[in-house]
Amino acid sequence: MGGDFAPLQIVAGAVRASSELGIECVLCGREAAVREALERAGGDLEVVDAPDVIPMGHPDPALAVRSMRNSSVSVACRLVKQGRADAAFSAGATGAAMAAAVMHMGRVRGVGRPAVTVVLPFPESPTVLLDAGANVEVRPDHMLGFAVMGSLFAEVRLEIEKPRVGLLSIGEEPGKGSDLVKAAFELIEAAGLNFVGNVEGRDIPSDRVDVVVTDGFTGNVALKLMEGFATFLMAELLKIFGATEQTRRASQVLLPGLLELRSALSTESQGGAQLLGVNGVCIIGHGASSSQAAMSAIDIAAQTADAGFVARVTDRLGGTKREMDAS
Amino acid sequence: MGGDFAPLQIVAGAVRASSELGIECVLCGREAAVREALERAGGDLEVVDAPDVIPMGHPDPALAVRSMRNSSVSVACRLVKQGRADAAFSAGATGAAMAAAVMHMGRVRGVGRPAVTVVLPFPESPTVLLDAGANVEVRPDHMLGFAVMGSLFAEVRLEIEKPRVGLLSIGEEPGKGSDLVKAAFELIEAAGLNFVGNVEGRDIPSDRVDVVVTDGFTGNVALKLMEGFATFLMAELLKIFGATEQTRRASQVLLPGLLELRSALSTESQGGAQLLGVNGVCIIGHGASSSQAAMSAIDIAAQTADAGFVARVTDRLGGTKREMDAS
Repeated sequence: MGGDFAPLQIVAGAVRASSELGIECVLCGREAAVREALERAGGDLEVVDAPDVIPMGHPDPALAVRSMRNSSVSVACRLVKQGRADAAFSAGATGAAMAAAVMHMGRVRGVGRPAVTVVLPFPESPTVLLDAGANVEVRPDHMLGFAVMGSLFAEVRLEIEKPRVGLLSIGEEPGKGSDLVKAAFELIEAAGLNFVGNVEGRDIPSDRVDVVVTDGFTGNVALKLMEGFATFLMAELLKIFGATEQTRRASQVLLPGLLELRSALSTESQGGAQLLGVNGVCIIGHGASSSQAAMSAIDIAAQTADAGFVARVTDRLGGTKREMDAS
Repeated sequence: MGGDFAPLQIVAGAVRASSELGIECVLCGREAAVREALERAGGDLEVVDAPDVIPMGHPDPALAVRSMRNSSVSVACRLVKQGRADAAFSAGATGAAMAAAVMHMGRVRGVGRPAVTVVLPFPESPTVLLDAGANVEVRPDHMLGFAVMGSLFAEVRLEIEKPRVGLLSIGEEPGKGSDLVKAAFELIEAAGLNFVGNVEGRDIPSDRVDVVVTDGFTGNVALKLMEGFATFLMAELLKIFGATEQTRRASQVLLPGLLELRSALSTESQGGAQLLGVNGVCIIGHGASSSQAAMSAIDIAAQTADAGFVARVTDRLGGTKREMDAS
């Protein structure tokens, strides 16, 4: 029921994921509304009733999740906890999905804070960014957890053997940055990762680094800035292309390549953000998720579950913890 | 003497500013080196000897400034303090210029911290961003100072009557963001500015806001991210344009418009960052400043001095301070 175009687009995405990708989907939401959407989407999937609906624009969606036990996102997370589903997907508010996942799935042992994790889809060097908005205030040990989880996530999702992990700061030298960054640097450096040290804003789109670790405030600003800047540049390009009859003709030749680039960079193909650190797979889609975006997200959810990602995080964090205890 | 192409490009920029814009320039640096550069640039300007040179890549340029009284940036800032110059420009390390300006010019009364301030040159809606890297850790009252200075700077530099001031956060509602942002929100809201509240990363390139206030960590990450992202997108575009004979031909038609956009967004035309909050005009150029960039920066320096910007900041901050004391 979460998302700007729910339930129809989400249901349609699930129907497509089922028919096109062979992924078994269970729909959670107000039964009548979901069944109506299912009929319109021409599909036949299992429906689990979730009578509570968190109103759009609720000032504190995390609080709403706690007071409404049977919202669609809570019901979905409970299905994962009960082993009746392998992964949950929601296009509702990030705060709501986080609260539901933590409450119903629980946290992985050794993870101080779950992190919203995105893959920035730079065509030749995709970059994992975390935390992209779950935790406004973090401690250095939380950032260590982000580094460990992000590294493993890059291994599984991007198939990079020893992902280069960087710590976002404002200078490359180890002593640069805030007190938080300096303290996190020391912890991450000792964690046995392929740590490349501090990276700067300009390195995020470069191929210097595979995993960028930061606090949820900076990460969220960076993520939304890239969205805004890409939108701005596309608008400027369209102005240049549409300037004269001659440029309009010329741009026709270039349009296929440009649309491909735009599509590669769009949220449609990214499959949403992963909530790492909870005891189950939870994917949070963009609020404006279309059926295409929902299908991509469901695909990624299934892949992440198949890869046994959560068990591997649990192992790895246990391992890191022991190493740290021994030192 | 600061900058990757100093002294030649800086001297050449000053020679051009003098001959093309009629701005009187005084060159500070090692006299022999500066006179040689002057000869090569074909100019005849006053030279003030500054025998100390801070080595490139010094690990702590601010410390170096304090121990070397006669570096070029210190000598330039002293000329301003003594009334022998109206503004200082340096393409050396930001930390060095800040230290020199604070040490020799002093701070404006009522300014807790000076801020590195940049104009992001979005063609139809340029945006003032501060702090872009001077202060890694700030207090809410420092951010209030940034808001007041940034607003006045937008009035003077961008000729906007009541600049819309926004506070960078991760949600638009007043309660969103870190504790620092929440506390700064209340102070800025009460300061009598045209405060539009919280803005997000995606709003920076939009026309929702004229002045974006943030801490030096987030601001620096955002600034460098935009640089990196623009570089990335330009490289992707060039790949699309160069793909086939046909696209190469088509791109010829679009190239003038694209080069214009790139030039508008480039650091060349921005004239460097302003250090606001010190008792004199101080402009910090990009390390890679060419003669063109140096000339632009000198032009902006002269304009800022002509506008009596420092006196106006002093008046305004005095006013704000009194209002706050009275409340």
